Amino acid sequence: MRPGGRSARVQASVHTAVRELLSEVGRDALTVPLVAQRAGVTPSTIYRRWGDLQELLSDVAVERLRPETEPEDHGDLRTDMTAWAEQFLDEMASSSGRAYIRDALLGDLDGTNAGQCSAYAAEQIDVVLARARDRGEDAPDVETAMDRIVAPVMYRILFRPAGLDAAYARRIVTEFLGATGEDD
Amino acid sequence: MRPGGRSARVQASVHTAVRELLSEVGRDALTVPLVAQRAGVTPSTIYRRWGDLQELLSDVAVERLRPETEPEDHGDLRTDMTAWAEQFLDEMASSSGRAYIRDALLGDLDGTNAGQCSAYAAEQIDVVLARARDRGEDAPDVETAMDRIVAPVMYRILFRPAGLDAAYARRIVTEFLGATGEDD
Repeated sequence: MRPGGRSARVQASVHTAVRELLSEVGRDALTVPLVAQRAGVTPSTIYRRWGDLQELLSDVAVERLRPETEPEDHGDLRTDMTAWAEQFLDEMASSSGRAYIRDALLGDLDGTNAGQCSAYAAEQIDVVLARARDRGEDAPDVETAMDRIVAPVMYRILFRPAGLDAAYARRIVTEFLGATGEDD
Repeated sequence: MRPGGRSARVQASVHTAVRELLSEVGRDALTVPLVAQRAGVTPSTIYRRWGDLQELLSDVAVERLRPETEPEDHGDLRTDMTAWAEQFLDEMASSSGRAYIRDALLGDLDGTNAGQCSAYAAEQIDVVLARARDRGEDAPDVETAMDRIVAPVMYRILFRPAGLDAAYARRIVTEFLGATGEDD
């Protein structure tokens, strides 16, 4: 999608309509004609651009999963990574987070949206790791962090949801960075 | 579902009908009436029992994702775990594996089927780890193996599919067990 002009305005108004209607009428009552009416476009505009409701919901979900802020800087890698992992787990495992992950995957026929979700997490971790290197700390690479922190959190949310709490997030970060220090 | 009697016969014939029709007409042409006709049941039997086509496809997918054999015994933990991870990645990342994972998740309203997929992997890993302990080898616990081997494979299949090959499977097993020995 081009980022400017009419195309961008249509996208913004349709996304807003979906978010509003999701909270007003809920997922099951949502239809393309209802979204079109609220957004002030024709249903065929939506079908042409998004294919169907599930693909539209996937795009909206990815937009909602985009991190709004940079990871916090607490002065050292272990604290930064732990804080990031706790917040990531908290957001993704919440009921709205789970619904967005599910929507993002379901209407994502070519894998673009799932890839975007993964890229968001990788970008955030990259910031944490680059900051650590700038301080002179040893920092693992981002793909290892994806395997050791993001993957188990997302896998457990989708397939094995018991026991997902802040203690779990702290434990996987401690094991990832090596249990050398101030952690319990 | 009770495992015996008419209920089990209906389930078996409906599952068989879905598998046959998937290979004959493909996913997009599959409908509940078509499955019902092939299985010799009424459409309402299917709606009553499965809700809709997506839930039926989820049940069939989980059945297909059930491991058919015990993990091979090669005589030591490292070789067993590596062989299992290579085969797991190979099956799950294949085009039919990806389609089954997707189906299993999509029609799975209460998480039962996703949990079953995860339980299958955990049971297989448990066999590998128990066998190692019986030989007197040190073996990590199954939940750590889920986080370090199953989670990254499944996460990458769904969200980050580049670079998923046998070398990746070997690398995560080597890192999981500690790089102490005969690996490259």
